[in-house]
Amino acid sequence: MTTANLETAAPDPIRFVGQTDGHLVLIDQTKLPVELIHIECRDVETIWEAIKMLRVRGAPAIGIAAAYGVVVGMQAAADKPMAEFESRFDEVVEYLAGSRPTAVNLFWALDRLKATFAAAKESGKTTAEIHDALLAEARFIHEDDRQVCRAIGRHGAELIEPGNGILTHCNAGGLATADYGTALAVMFTCQDQGKEIHVFVDETRPLLQGSRLTAWELVQRKIPATLICDNMAAQVMKEGRINAVITGADRIAANGDSANKIGTYGVALLAKAHGIPFYIAAPISTFDLSLPTGEGIPIEQRDPVEIIHGMGKQTAPSEVQVYNPAFDVTPAGLIAGIITEKGVISPVTPENVAKVVAG
Amino acid sequence: MTTANLETAAPDPIRFVGQTDGHLVLIDQTKLPVELIHIECRDVETIWEAIKMLRVRGAPAIGIAAAYGVVVGMQAAADKPMAEFESRFDEVVEYLAGSRPTAVNLFWALDRLKATFAAAKESGKTTAEIHDALLAEARFIHEDDRQVCRAIGRHGAELIEPGNGILTHCNAGGLATADYGTALAVMFTCQDQGKEIHVFVDETRPLLQGSRLTAWELVQRKIPATLICDNMAAQVMKEGRINAVITGADRIAANGDSANKIGTYGVALLAKAHGIPFYIAAPISTFDLSLPTGEGIPIEQRDPVEIIHGMGKQTAPSEVQVYNPAFDVTPAGLIAGIITEKGVISPVTPENVAKVVAG
Repeated sequence: MTTANLETAAPDPIRFVGQTDGHLVLIDQTKLPVELIHIECRDVETIWEAIKMLRVRGAPAIGIAAAYGVVVGMQAAADKPMAEFESRFDEVVEYLAGSRPTAVNLFWALDRLKATFAAAKESGKTTAEIHDALLAEARFIHEDDRQVCRAIGRHGAELIEPGNGILTHCNAGGLATADYGTALAVMFTCQDQGKEIHVFVDETRPLLQGSRLTAWELVQRKIPATLICDNMAAQVMKEGRINAVITGADRIAANGDSANKIGTYGVALLAKAHGIPFYIAAPISTFDLSLPTGEGIPIEQRDPVEIIHGMGKQTAPSEVQVYNPAFDVTPAGLIAGIITEKGVISPVTPENVAKVVAG
Repeated sequence: MTTANLETAAPDPIRFVGQTDGHLVLIDQTKLPVELIHIECRDVETIWEAIKMLRVRGAPAIGIAAAYGVVVGMQAAADKPMAEFESRFDEVVEYLAGSRPTAVNLFWALDRLKATFAAAKESGKTTAEIHDALLAEARFIHEDDRQVCRAIGRHGAELIEPGNGILTHCNAGGLATADYGTALAVMFTCQDQGKEIHVFVDETRPLLQGSRLTAWELVQRKIPATLICDNMAAQVMKEGRINAVITGADRIAANGDSANKIGTYGVALLAKAHGIPFYIAAPISTFDLSLPTGEGIPIEQRDPVEIIHGMGKQTAPSEVQVYNPAFDVTPAGLIAGIITEKGVISPVTPENVAKVVAG
């Protein structure tokens, strides 16, 4: 789990070093792209702070960090009697749950560790054995996400021809996951296969995840990449430089409508106008089959300061109204295919979604 | 010419105070939107610096400022004999021509003053009378541009219904002209007519003319305005909040293809996808009938630092490639109408362009 990625020079975003007395190493994403700083987390407080302050971000990455956070947090009670060990576990889990209360994957990971603890205790394991079981579960969550990313990359790479230009929006890369990410997994896999590609990266206002994170990941892996402002995508398409658009997704309805970072819907429309296929790359866990269509997905409004104060400097009059939706929903009809770890859903119909998600 | 705009609280972007011994007052656009600073230009050097440092920008505004710059520059030779007066004139014109050598309107305005000087001298006028003639010509250029803006506003306002939402991109406002601007002239005229509208403003990366200038102009005039990032335009259209898109243009070919700030073409495609009419507002002087189509318009590439260093802070890795086109070309087929001072060209065909431009 701690071996470096040998295909490329890119550092692992999350790395656990050692056994139950080990420590977690995270890339401080708030310092990118200017500095590559690794945080050595030797206590649960450091991990809590890293999640809280978005030093680690992206749903899968938060879940993985929290799982290792529990292992590190239990070190303080490693030689204590069972009652004290168990009370410490509850305390650590509750503490980590407060780091980012809106992150679904955080709770999902903590619940898995709770189930692991309960099962291990039930079967009469010692505190040391329970601690081992918690580490094994954290490693399983980590490895499972890695495998999901790699499978998405393999399925997506089949859609790409040598020499293709690919446009992506926001950051659906390794930093948000255990390893290869979702949309970027396709690019990384093409590189592993020796398939030459050129990636165009929307900077993705207001928070610039494209410039800060995606461009950084591509530069790290030496994949030819060109950064553009969001409003340049249409021009690049018109010039014939884009053969496919691939983005991630935050939530996908049963009919394939996909919520993703604001701007994705516009890019999908521009792709359609230029006859370019638009793909979503996302794990099966992104599907929410309780939603028949994307109509039901609420669109969070974010702080106007992100737009008015740009990058820490005021660039608009304070009196102007601001609309700052975090997401938009791309209708299934604009999506040529949804690339999952189980294969590509295409055409995107409720039947095909059900088949792949359930299958 | 020096009366304040009585319809609104917005300050005149360019104002000449007094007679030939008077001075020019400019808004320092580099300080917007945070501060409203007026520069009192009492010598030609101050005007030269204002043009050079983009304190005054926008093709018509540069021409007007340069014309008044000649008047102010001639004050140093006001009581000199004709030979000295004439030599000072040549010096002032040459000096101002060096302030922004790529600005076409700068040379156009200086050429008009040269013709005025020659005609006045030819007809036997004194130096004081020639100085008067130069001021009269500068005022004519200023007033002519004001009338053009007002006429564009009147023709455009006929296309807008009460309660309409209008999207605009970049800054085609009063700051760039004598007065009402081009695209914004339509909004200002609607307000003068008591027609309620709501304007959505694309921030317009990389240089944020939408946030910095357009939002400021609308706030000054108390026109309801909402600032969005460029990648939010599609979502606002999908929500049914936009009834028309209006932008300016930098150059228009004989068939109506229009070059304008990067991002305009994408907005036109998004408008089409949502069944929203897309209009260009521009004076007749913007047409270049020597170009049969927009294919011939060269697209200037700008400094990557505008994208990588956002607003003075590094937001992308320095190693990433950058594509930073200043303009794009919107094909005539996407334009519902071109709003000029002589009326609206619609449908946009070579025949209709020729009729209005020549007519």
